[in-house]
Amino acid sequence: VSEFRVVGLPTSAEVEAGTDLVALVLDAAAAAGWTFADGDVLCIASKVVAKAEGATVALPAATDVHEARRALAREQATRIVAETPQVLIVETHHGFVCANAGIDTSNVPGEGVALLLPDDPDASAAGLREGLHERTGASVGVIVTDTFGRPWRLGQTDVALGAAGVVALRDDRGGADRLGRPLEVTQVAVADQLAAAADLVRGKADGTPFVVLRGLDLGGAGTGRDLLRPADQDAFRTGTGAAAPEPTDHGSR
Amino acid sequence: VSEFRVVGLPTSAEVEAGTDLVALVLDAAAAAGWTFADGDVLCIASKVVAKAEGATVALPAATDVHEARRALAREQATRIVAETPQVLIVETHHGFVCANAGIDTSNVPGEGVALLLPDDPDASAAGLREGLHERTGASVGVIVTDTFGRPWRLGQTDVALGAAGVVALRDDRGGADRLGRPLEVTQVAVADQLAAAADLVRGKADGTPFVVLRGLDLGGAGTGRDLLRPADQDAFRTGTGAAAPEPTDHGSR
Repeated sequence: VSEFRVVGLPTSAEVEAGTDLVALVLDAAAAAGWTFADGDVLCIASKVVAKAEGATVALPAATDVHEARRALAREQATRIVAETPQVLIVETHHGFVCANAGIDTSNVPGEGVALLLPDDPDASAAGLREGLHERTGASVGVIVTDTFGRPWRLGQTDVALGAAGVVALRDDRGGADRLGRPLEVTQVAVADQLAAAADLVRGKADGTPFVVLRGLDLGGAGTGRDLLRPADQDAFRTGTGAAAPEPTDHGSR
Repeated sequence: VSEFRVVGLPTSAEVEAGTDLVALVLDAAAAAGWTFADGDVLCIASKVVAKAEGATVALPAATDVHEARRALAREQATRIVAETPQVLIVETHHGFVCANAGIDTSNVPGEGVALLLPDDPDASAAGLREGLHERTGASVGVIVTDTFGRPWRLGQTDVALGAAGVVALRDDRGGADRLGRPLEVTQVAVADQLAAAADLVRGKADGTPFVVLRGLDLGGAGTGRDLLRPADQDAFRTGTGAAAPEPTDHGSR
């Protein structure tokens, strides 16, 4: 691959529980003059997926919306990873580690209502891929994306929560460099990089939940789960210092 | 922005200390039929920057190259963030937190030699931007990229070590959503997302150190330093639980 394109498909439609997202994607594509083709990768913001799936819950009673969100995040968490007055970082039932369990209270219609992450983002991605194939005949990779912070670095980046029909984690272990030595970078988080690329076409508070990438040769059977580091191989989850063999070292031994 | 392009500029040239990187970029661009224009963003792998700057050191004596690299990483570190038999994660003098201080022993010509990170990647980026402007007249953003792992998620992604002439961290704090509530995502790591997008055009063990992005409106005065979370605001560095106000919460208060 020496070139690819990243194209935003804006929409002003409001998504509700039961909204046909495939129809909405195709409307947005038509408005942008976009015709899906085999090998395209569609990134969809998890927020619209969660809305369409009706993944809303009532916020617990609390003094303010942020306290309420924190209480709800605690309920949703399977593990508290870090907690300070400013932030609550948890592991979710999916295995994601993120602030406030990914619970969203902005752009959610209705007072006292919060949006959870999609229950099974890989299944959501697979369903959207299937729907797009049925209605267009094209084999399109689908990634359900969300915006996470990270330790050590400021700013958030988009990552892949779910995926279907696309490579998620590219494993280069066993490869050699041009001098025949083992490659140092041995696992590439392709789907996270696709999500990050897609986010660049969005502006502030922008209504562009759908972004398509064309020109990459990344068809595959990856899932969002491929990108989850097991807790017992993570130096920054258990606090016990039991760390994973870093990809950097895998290829070097 | 509703569309942008990401184009790889391959080269087979070997980079040595003193190599004129601007000339090399322009050769690769010419070979790919690319003419730089105002607003383009050029991502350059830190490895070629470090090679051109002669950022090599002798590996310490050790039983094998990996032990030697670990010993050198310890010398280069300003803080040990995590250490296990598999991995050594440190903070560098720049403020980066990464495995083995970013020291590279693959594709480095010469036995017993290791490549450090560029000493000042922001200065490197600024110098390359200046050189491109002198020789083409175009105002091009430049990002010096490298490949880092991360906690919680498998696989590595490219991030921005240095930047010039481009937005690095976009601060949306104070913004409102479409219902008038504070935006939850309030700082976007734009330069890291640019680096990640650029990496997608590279394959395994690929000779594509230069990648250009066109169509984004991201001119600015950002630097790689903008993306460094101060240690005293990081729940995953001190081990004391003193965490930063996460971007997610900043905008919500």
